[in-house]
Amino acid sequence: MSLTSSTPEDSARSASLAARSLAVLPVSSRNNALTTIHDALLSAKPTILEANAQDMSLATTASNDGSLSASLVKRLDLTRPGKYEDMLQGILDVRDLPDPIGQVSLRTLLDDGLELERVSCPIGVLLIIFEARPEVIANIAALAIKSGNAAILKGGKESTYSFEAISRVISEALETTEVPNGAIQLVKTRDVIDELLQLDRYIDLVIPRGGNELVRYVKEHTRILVMGHADGLCSVYLHSDADSEIAKKVVVDSKCDYPAACNAAETLLVHESVLGSVLPGVAEVLLQRGVSLLCDGKSKQVLGEKLPSDKAALLQDVGETDYDTEFLDLKIAVKTVPAIGAVNGTAYTTSSDPSLDLAISHINAHSSGHTDSIVTRSKEAAEYFMSAVDSAGVYWNASTRFADGMRYGFGTEVGISTNRIHSRGPVGLEGLTIYKYKIRGSGQVAGEYGAGKRAYKHEKLPL
Amino acid sequence: MSLTSSTPEDSARSASLAARSLAVLPVSSRNNALTTIHDALLSAKPTILEANAQDMSLATTASNDGSLSASLVKRLDLTRPGKYEDMLQGILDVRDLPDPIGQVSLRTLLDDGLELERVSCPIGVLLIIFEARPEVIANIAALAIKSGNAAILKGGKESTYSFEAISRVISEALETTEVPNGAIQLVKTRDVIDELLQLDRYIDLVIPRGGNELVRYVKEHTRILVMGHADGLCSVYLHSDADSEIAKKVVVDSKCDYPAACNAAETLLVHESVLGSVLPGVAEVLLQRGVSLLCDGKSKQVLGEKLPSDKAALLQDVGETDYDTEFLDLKIAVKTVPAIGAVNGTAYTTSSDPSLDLAISHINAHSSGHTDSIVTRSKEAAEYFMSAVDSAGVYWNASTRFADGMRYGFGTEVGISTNRIHSRGPVGLEGLTIYKYKIRGSGQVAGEYGAGKRAYKHEKLPL
Repeated sequence: MSLTSSTPEDSARSASLAARSLAVLPVSSRNNALTTIHDALLSAKPTILEANAQDMSLATTASNDGSLSASLVKRLDLTRPGKYEDMLQGILDVRDLPDPIGQVSLRTLLDDGLELERVSCPIGVLLIIFEARPEVIANIAALAIKSGNAAILKGGKESTYSFEAISRVISEALETTEVPNGAIQLVKTRDVIDELLQLDRYIDLVIPRGGNELVRYVKEHTRILVMGHADGLCSVYLHSDADSEIAKKVVVDSKCDYPAACNAAETLLVHESVLGSVLPGVAEVLLQRGVSLLCDGKSKQVLGEKLPSDKAALLQDVGETDYDTEFLDLKIAVKTVPAIGAVNGTAYTTSSDPSLDLAISHINAHSSGHTDSIVTRSKEAAEYFMSAVDSAGVYWNASTRFADGMRYGFGTEVGISTNRIHSRGPVGLEGLTIYKYKIRGSGQVAGEYGAGKRAYKHEKLPL
Repeated sequence: MSLTSSTPEDSARSASLAARSLAVLPVSSRNNALTTIHDALLSAKPTILEANAQDMSLATTASNDGSLSASLVKRLDLTRPGKYEDMLQGILDVRDLPDPIGQVSLRTLLDDGLELERVSCPIGVLLIIFEARPEVIANIAALAIKSGNAAILKGGKESTYSFEAISRVISEALETTEVPNGAIQLVKTRDVIDELLQLDRYIDLVIPRGGNELVRYVKEHTRILVMGHADGLCSVYLHSDADSEIAKKVVVDSKCDYPAACNAAETLLVHESVLGSVLPGVAEVLLQRGVSLLCDGKSKQVLGEKLPSDKAALLQDVGETDYDTEFLDLKIAVKTVPAIGAVNGTAYTTSSDPSLDLAISHINAHSSGHTDSIVTRSKEAAEYFMSAVDSAGVYWNASTRFADGMRYGFGTEVGISTNRIHSRGPVGLEGLTIYKYKIRGSGQVAGEYGAGKRAYKHEKLPL
């Protein structure tokens, strides 16, 4: 790892060269490097926490001035119980995952003695931009090394001291490993993000780890593919045959389990026929948990009749933009889906249930393509919903909060992608790979094949 | 299919809506639409050829003026033997390929009654920009429909009449199918490319089909992922133990089989130790076939001694930029790889053969990441070369000309990608898909899991 004060272009070029070498290192060498980093960070804990205290002191002052949010200060703090240990464990977890490199996904016998093989390989150079949390450096360095990618890391200025301390430890640790110097580039100079985002010659993928604002800024300023989601506007739809208990569990967890997360629900769609039966029970628990319910006319009216008057008094009117807002807070926008037997103007979907089509259309128009869930007893309705809703995660009778790399069993997560290209949903190590095609021949040439000449066999071979 | 004169934004929005519907159509409906298009284009052949004659007449005039290249006029011509039939057959070939949609690539039991599934689905909306060849409309419409994607097609102005005629036929044919109106948008208004390239809200992937200039222009003017290669600078490397006969076959085919193709070789790297043994035989055939050999000092000297003097007289000096030039012509740049036992300054690769590292470094620095081949008897050298060369295709004892979707057995090819994201190398229908995650539960919520609570099972299920 080099702590560079060179230009962004130098860093990127050097990372690009190092990536070539890293790409051919065996997994044992990559894993050994992770063990070494882990051990070094473990023994350097006091030094790193000292540096972190300097960041914390500056940040606390800034927070008292009001120039920094209290939540950012909290994210900076490496002394919070379990945080340092989690960072260390994360490195070992990544080390112990299966090697994502060298996986063969296709083998074809083109002709006798002429074999085609598709093999996973690293992408090349990743640019990772993150805001405050200093432990992200260690996680990302681990992910990059494990997947054979070089990485350029650019951290937020609030974590400068922690960042430098961690970097120095990782850098010294890597010196003793086979991972090439230069595979992890730490860019400390400020205001270089724009310049880095232009270096598509060297950088293959940008991963912004931070708030929505950062992700959006990055997406708007580069032509390099950005792995990240700009929004997490998730919905739960209670269908006409929704089970009351399941509805209650799924909606409450989707909204309340961690409201600031991108996989928390922001919109609750309710079939008109269950406004008076299923919704009141759901609403009561939500209100109990302190959730503001922003209701449309019909749902407010029915809830007003069904709920005790002290609860009913808490209901609010939904505003025009609420169905497009990621609240990240204890708020949920409620929308009634009309119960109808036939409908005009929804030419593009063709389920047997027009109300379901309306719910799907609303989601496709307003959700951010992150994760959406339907509560229904009908397998047919659920399967149609999951096919027609154009989101990375489409669930049946399950909380939107399951959208997460750990929960999916990927061990770790680079981020959650709402792109429709390369990688979608929770992105594990696999999302940091691409593939190449190898052909092993014995002197064959293309001119030998074709009309009146040799024919290709195109025989699928076992992987 | 709509022949639209609406704004690019209207087209894109409408394609985006139609994509939702197309995504849930069963494969039988998509296949039926392709049969219908095929039959309609078959019976409308006379009308379409008439329109094509109008384009040809304008183009021929322009060509005589010198304002249009003769090769472009040739590409316009739908009356060339077999061309119309190939276009028709191409539609049926695409129809008969396996459905790329709905393929399950991962199934995990998260917990009892809680299953995760990763299923392939369409990307959404493709923007296809192509230059002259009018038959591309039919091919691309077929690929888009088969893969469940909506497509916005923008053709070159030289093929306006043919394009409109083919479009009208496809449009009328689609009216009788289940593929929604709007799934294929034909943009006829001119100078709208820049505007389309800005519509990343609606368009998910851009596929430029045309010359390098078009591809480069598109890449420079959009933040949408572009599937295509800007260059095809391929190399063949003759290692120290290269077989003479294989070297001759592979180099000659790579260069001469179709010099204007992106998978033709432009650079020939030769290990110093075989300059006098293997290279002369190769050079002789190349010169016989009319190839100009642009040689560095050492290779020119040795060839000068070994070749008959009339042949030697044809050797040229390589220029500084020749190793970075895609000649697309009967020219090849020859470079000697020094025979050395140890080398300084190549810190990033670690084979047991420093000369091999030098060859690999040259390729990684100068090739376009398309396809590169090594000729060697050594399995070890070949495997190392294929791991370390960072290109979409890395071959051992085989012609670079195999880099092609048909030859790989993909049936059809959307293009060849030199991206390191999403899809690399020859891109078949699979490259027009992404995936979504489905979860089928029975009321599970994330809050039930974690330390001291339920644990995930993360059990791999059969596909």
